[in-house]
Amino acid sequence: MPITANNPNRKSWIDVQKDSDFPIQNIPFGVFLTKDDIITIGTRIGNCAIDLGAMQQLNYFEGIELTDDMFMQDTLNDFISDGKKTWRLVRNRIGDLFDSENPKLRDNKAHRDIIIFDINEVEMQLPVLIGDYTDFYSSKEHATNVGKMFRDPENALLPNWLHIPVGYHGRSSTIVPSGIPVHRPMGQTLPNGDTQPVFGPSRLVDFELETAFITTDANIMGENIPVTEAEDYIFGMVLLNDWSARDMQKWEYVPLGPFLAKNFASSISPWIVTMDALEPFRTKGPKQEPAPLPYLQQKGKHAYDISLEVYLTPNNGEPDLVSKSNFKYMYWSMAQQLAHHTSNGCKVNSGDMMGSGTISGPTPESFGSMLELTWGGKNPIKLSNGTERKFIDDNDTITMKGYCKNSQIRIGFGEVSSKLLPSFVRK
Amino acid sequence: MPITANNPNRKSWIDVQKDSDFPIQNIPFGVFLTKDDIITIGTRIGNCAIDLGAMQQLNYFEGIELTDDMFMQDTLNDFISDGKKTWRLVRNRIGDLFDSENPKLRDNKAHRDIIIFDINEVEMQLPVLIGDYTDFYSSKEHATNVGKMFRDPENALLPNWLHIPVGYHGRSSTIVPSGIPVHRPMGQTLPNGDTQPVFGPSRLVDFELETAFITTDANIMGENIPVTEAEDYIFGMVLLNDWSARDMQKWEYVPLGPFLAKNFASSISPWIVTMDALEPFRTKGPKQEPAPLPYLQQKGKHAYDISLEVYLTPNNGEPDLVSKSNFKYMYWSMAQQLAHHTSNGCKVNSGDMMGSGTISGPTPESFGSMLELTWGGKNPIKLSNGTERKFIDDNDTITMKGYCKNSQIRIGFGEVSSKLLPSFVRK
Repeated sequence: MPITANNPNRKSWIDVQKDSDFPIQNIPFGVFLTKDDIITIGTRIGNCAIDLGAMQQLNYFEGIELTDDMFMQDTLNDFISDGKKTWRLVRNRIGDLFDSENPKLRDNKAHRDIIIFDINEVEMQLPVLIGDYTDFYSSKEHATNVGKMFRDPENALLPNWLHIPVGYHGRSSTIVPSGIPVHRPMGQTLPNGDTQPVFGPSRLVDFELETAFITTDANIMGENIPVTEAEDYIFGMVLLNDWSARDMQKWEYVPLGPFLAKNFASSISPWIVTMDALEPFRTKGPKQEPAPLPYLQQKGKHAYDISLEVYLTPNNGEPDLVSKSNFKYMYWSMAQQLAHHTSNGCKVNSGDMMGSGTISGPTPESFGSMLELTWGGKNPIKLSNGTERKFIDDNDTITMKGYCKNSQIRIGFGEVSSKLLPSFVRK
Repeated sequence: MPITANNPNRKSWIDVQKDSDFPIQNIPFGVFLTKDDIITIGTRIGNCAIDLGAMQQLNYFEGIELTDDMFMQDTLNDFISDGKKTWRLVRNRIGDLFDSENPKLRDNKAHRDIIIFDINEVEMQLPVLIGDYTDFYSSKEHATNVGKMFRDPENALLPNWLHIPVGYHGRSSTIVPSGIPVHRPMGQTLPNGDTQPVFGPSRLVDFELETAFITTDANIMGENIPVTEAEDYIFGMVLLNDWSARDMQKWEYVPLGPFLAKNFASSISPWIVTMDALEPFRTKGPKQEPAPLPYLQQKGKHAYDISLEVYLTPNNGEPDLVSKSNFKYMYWSMAQQLAHHTSNGCKVNSGDMMGSGTISGPTPESFGSMLELTWGGKNPIKLSNGTERKFIDDNDTITMKGYCKNSQIRIGFGEVSSKLLPSFVRK
């Protein structure tokens, strides 16, 4: 089935600004609360939030097999469960309906008034109920930087790294959408040169620039998903700030991996951009040398050219661009990650989220964390307000943006933006 | 409010065998499917499964504030969310109703026929929807054994172990109830002395003898639960077999911890035994030296005397007892685990599950995994059928049992029993 929604020549009857992340070719999926306190599944064109629940009730999805309340839900899990064919039918239909040439909804003011909201009038929610959250570690540059700083500069990459898309389980309960502030975590750390740990606010809170993909039901327990089929089970992507407390991480992570240093918060952008929308931006990933084992081997283009930016905004200040990276630098593809994850029969459900790991590029300004940008605090970043940062200060806001662009269209993710509050103090 | 349900002198009008795990003083909670394909929340006395949904419809919980369909659900999450006071009221009421002196239900045959099933007529389900699964590593003996085998026999415990209840995130999607068979996982391993990994069935599949506790909603994100309050947020416990693939684990676990070596399956016993039922079996845990940091300090009895047994049954063979341990050996208490887990503001939800980590005692026969029992395969276990085991063979069944016993009563968990099937082969 062709992805007619991607037609680059199409314009919408909704006004879309030139540099918008959300032209009619994007059609992402999300969940929002309207000013009337109704929660619904929706999409976005330009600065309009579009209520798909209302559209379904008004019969705009006639002819597509959907349960009656498919879009009148507070998560996308059931829709994602319906599979790739349905996602494409719905997205194609939305493209048709908002095409400037199509009078059906364009000329029906009563329906428009029910269906379309100003984006500032709605409150974005988590788009899915995330059953399990896995975070990978798939940027070779990031793994190398960390290895150089904490282990052996001469043997920065661990022996398994070039063979395994290394990953670990994260915490679902603290994944929050853009806009929700995050408290600086309290935790145990070992002061330098000491043997007795102390408990208090983390002094080294960091962001990690990541993307994440959302899966559909992929397998039954015990079965694997072959790498050649894995892309069919990926619904779309979001931006992910995987907040990290470096001092807590250093003390706790051997031998079972990061735990409290990561699970206090992970922030995501609220619109899931579909893999169909990202299709025009496929590109070749880095050469994999040595060749992966057969169950991870892929041919063709499985990376995506997604420009990524991180801004740090001091309290009452202006945003400073602190990192500029690209998703195409990732060594392991999402399909390889998913094939590996299920190679042992691990069950993957609709709404599961899998993070890329910190996305660092080859140059210092493309590193995806303060840890790497300041090289462990040795080279602080100078902000335009004259202050410096080694890590993140209380009341700083971290904003991540992502977009794809070619000569014809720009498809973006919007942003994930959250403020770091001081540690919570019990009264 | 007194726990009248624990009255050791009470007898039920349901016949209970002398060594049953489920006397009227237990009253665990679970979810089962009846032969009429109705799913309900229930409890168990002797060999009777009791339909709490039917009891609620017949008004047996009158006077206790419960939503109308509290027990007509397929998970216990909402009930657990109601909190400790409600759990106790319901358990006390059930104790009263099944007391041999109480004619109300005893003498109402029509009601009894609706409410009570033979345990063999029902199919036990997962008792909760597990949002997040955390596994701790809190047996000093286990951590020491592993450290001796894999790291430095002289410095077997890592520096953080005596300060932190070390834990990591597991996978919720592959937690299954007793009775569901598990496939031997496929995965990457590094053959001894080689530098190139291979992919194939794990050769070293192991059990881990654990218990797990189930939490209620405990905090909002950013807030902690003090160690002195943590026990109030623990609903009850189950037995847990945390299946492990040792060869995969060894190759993958540095630096982010175990992943595919663990997430192919975790099996639990289906009845959640409440902390109220376990109250008479509190005991002092091991002395903690050095003293933990203040946020982890506890006074009094916070360990529980729970006898644990593991049986290995070869295909078509008889069960052999391979391990005999006790939960009281755990160095870190459940309250300390939960206080630590939330010390950084990590949110805990109703139905979350937290595993103890492998429970090994001080003597070789009390070790909680084949890895330790056979000391890495060096000392195979001889089975009564004449065969030997270094790890688990295809079609072996692993059964774990647990119970508390004093001069008056025995409170048990039943069992978690699952067969290891050969690796799944795609047709």
